[in-house]
Amino acid sequence: MEPKLAQDRDGQFCPTRATLALVGQKWVPRIVYELRDGTHRFNDLATTVGGCNSRTLRDRLRALEEVGIVDRNEVATNPPWVEYALTPRGLELAEAIEQLGAWGQRHMTPEMLSGVTE
Amino acid sequence: MEPKLAQDRDGQFCPTRATLALVGQKWVPRIVYELRDGTHRFNDLATTVGGCNSRTLRDRLRALEEVGIVDRNEVATNPPWVEYALTPRGLELAEAIEQLGAWGQRHMTPEMLSGVTE
Repeated sequence: MEPKLAQDRDGQFCPTRATLALVGQKWVPRIVYELRDGTHRFNDLATTVGGCNSRTLRDRLRALEEVGIVDRNEVATNPPWVEYALTPRGLELAEAIEQLGAWGQRHMTPEMLSGVTE
Repeated sequence: MEPKLAQDRDGQFCPTRATLALVGQKWVPRIVYELRDGTHRFNDLATTVGGCNSRTLRDRLRALEEVGIVDRNEVATNPPWVEYALTPRGLELAEAIEQLGAWGQRHMTPEMLSGVTE
């Protein structure tokens, strides 16, 4: 992430803006949201998030793990699998993200998205 | 925006996920956040958002205008200028985005961002 994204206009680190830069990455709010109800295996998460390719999903999950939002757990079965869950800090973030969802429930319609492009 | 981003795993439109897709676009949460305290001229907003090039900022603002989050106002002075403000619906979204910022105030440090890449 470019340092500027996490700074205010005076060039000082700003935790609010840093968080908005983190959340304003494609898939990040969606991944945290889908994990809100508990542990998911990687493949299940890939299906649930839908449309995010596996490599991108893996990269995003790794970044979220590094900032202490997601816990990664390798389960040594045969075949082994990897599962992901939110940390306590991640659950707090999910609650804030659900407030965005509540806004969406009040205001968002399919028509509104027709003009929105990446 | 790809329709899948706004759908749940059953392929149904989901206003929560549509909102997360909207907010999970680089610069979008930041732009809404910077507008929370009132009207900004385009150039001032460009400085405040910092690091977003003018074309991208203009595109994002247009998209936010189309979904009723931002009001665009051309002021017919000489030279004329363009200013932007949040709509009532946009102000509600800004409040939800401030909850993300509050999470950041509690948890985000500069060190956490070192591993985060776009």
